[in-house]
Amino acid sequence: MAEITSTTQRLREICRTAARVFYEKGYDGASMQDIATAVGLTKAGLYHHVGSKDRLLFEIMNYGMDILDETVLEKTRDIEDPRAKLRQTIIGHIDLIVRARDLEITVILHENRSLKGALRKKINARKKAYIEMLEQLIAEVQKQGTREPLISPRIAAFALLGMINWLYQWYDSEGPIRQDQLAQVYLDFFFRGLLGGA
Amino acid sequence: MAEITSTTQRLREICRTAARVFYEKGYDGASMQDIATAVGLTKAGLYHHVGSKDRLLFEIMNYGMDILDETVLEKTRDIEDPRAKLRQTIIGHIDLIVRARDLEITVILHENRSLKGALRKKINARKKAYIEMLEQLIAEVQKQGTREPLISPRIAAFALLGMINWLYQWYDSEGPIRQDQLAQVYLDFFFRGLLGGA
Repeated sequence: MAEITSTTQRLREICRTAARVFYEKGYDGASMQDIATAVGLTKAGLYHHVGSKDRLLFEIMNYGMDILDETVLEKTRDIEDPRAKLRQTIIGHIDLIVRARDLEITVILHENRSLKGALRKKINARKKAYIEMLEQLIAEVQKQGTREPLISPRIAAFALLGMINWLYQWYDSEGPIRQDQLAQVYLDFFFRGLLGGA
Repeated sequence: MAEITSTTQRLREICRTAARVFYEKGYDGASMQDIATAVGLTKAGLYHHVGSKDRLLFEIMNYGMDILDETVLEKTRDIEDPRAKLRQTIIGHIDLIVRARDLEITVILHENRSLKGALRKKINARKKAYIEMLEQLIAEVQKQGTREPLISPRIAAFALLGMINWLYQWYDSEGPIRQDQLAQVYLDFFFRGLLGGA
C-alpha cells in the first residue's frame, strides 16, 4: 500500500511537470526528451514510468479528473440537501479552476483533442459521469423549487460548466475580484437563472 | 479595390485550410510544408502570402475576430434598445460558435497561447473591445431594469461568454436540441440570472 502510494505520487509529479511542458510547447511540439529533461529522468526512465507519449497525456488528464474528484466530489459526498450540495459543488469547481497550481492540467483536460482511441474514450467517460451527476443534482434542485423549470437540467449543467471552466481564460486570482465574491455572484446568478427569483 | 478583395478572399481561404491543419496537428506539430500542401501552394508561395508561421496564426485569429464582427456586431449595429440589442448579440454569438463551418477557427481563437508578443497583443485588444462592448450593453440593460443589479456587468459578460464559447465542447447541431431552442433557453437563463424574474 505504501509502495503504491509512492508510485502514484511519483506519477503525479511527472504529470505535473509534463503538463507544464505540454502547455508551453504544445502536445506535438514537446518531445519525450524535453519532458524527461524537465522531470530529471533519462528518456528510458520516463518511458519506464509512463509507457508512451499518448499514455502520458492520458495520465495527465486522468490525474486532472482525480483532482476534480478530490476537490469537488469528496467534499460534497456527505451533503444530503440537493441545493446545498449543488452550491458546494459550484464552489469546489470554481476553486479547482481558479487556483494557479493546476492551471496546466486543467487546460490540457479541456483541450483533449490530441488524445485518441480507447484512452480518449476513458477520459470522456469520466467527464460524462461528472456531467450526469451535475444534471441529476440540478433536476433534484428544480424539483424542490416552487416554479415550473424553464431550463432542462442538461443545458443548465453545460451552461454552468461553461461559466466555470471559462474562468481560466479571464479570471485573475490576484485581480480586483476575490474568489469568494466571484463564487457568490456565480451562485446567485446560476440559481436565479435556474429557478427564477432571488 | 477589386484586387484588395480578391487578396483578402485568398488569404481567408488559406486561413480556413491552415486552421484545419493546426486543429488536427497542433500549432507546433504542423509544418509550413503541411499547410502549403493542404492549401495547394509551394512552401515559397505560402510564405509569400503569409510571411511567417506566427503571422499565419495571427491572420487566422484576426479572421476569427472579423467573422465575429460580421456575424454579431454588424447585425446588431442598428438596434437601439439595449435589451433587444443584447438579445440579438447573444443569438448571433451562439450562431457563430455552433456552426460547424468555422469550428477550427473558433477553437484556435480560444486557445491562443501559441501567439506571442505584438501579434498576441493585437488579438487580445480586439477580444477586449468585444468584451467591453458586452459589458456596456449589460450595464445599460441593468439600468433599465426595476431591481438593483446583483451582478457586475463585467462578471456577467464573462459568465455569458463562458456559457456560449463552451458550446463548442458539447453542443451538437445535429443532436436533439435545436439551435433556436438552445438560444431561447440561454436567453431566458441569462436574463433571469442577470435581472431576476422571468
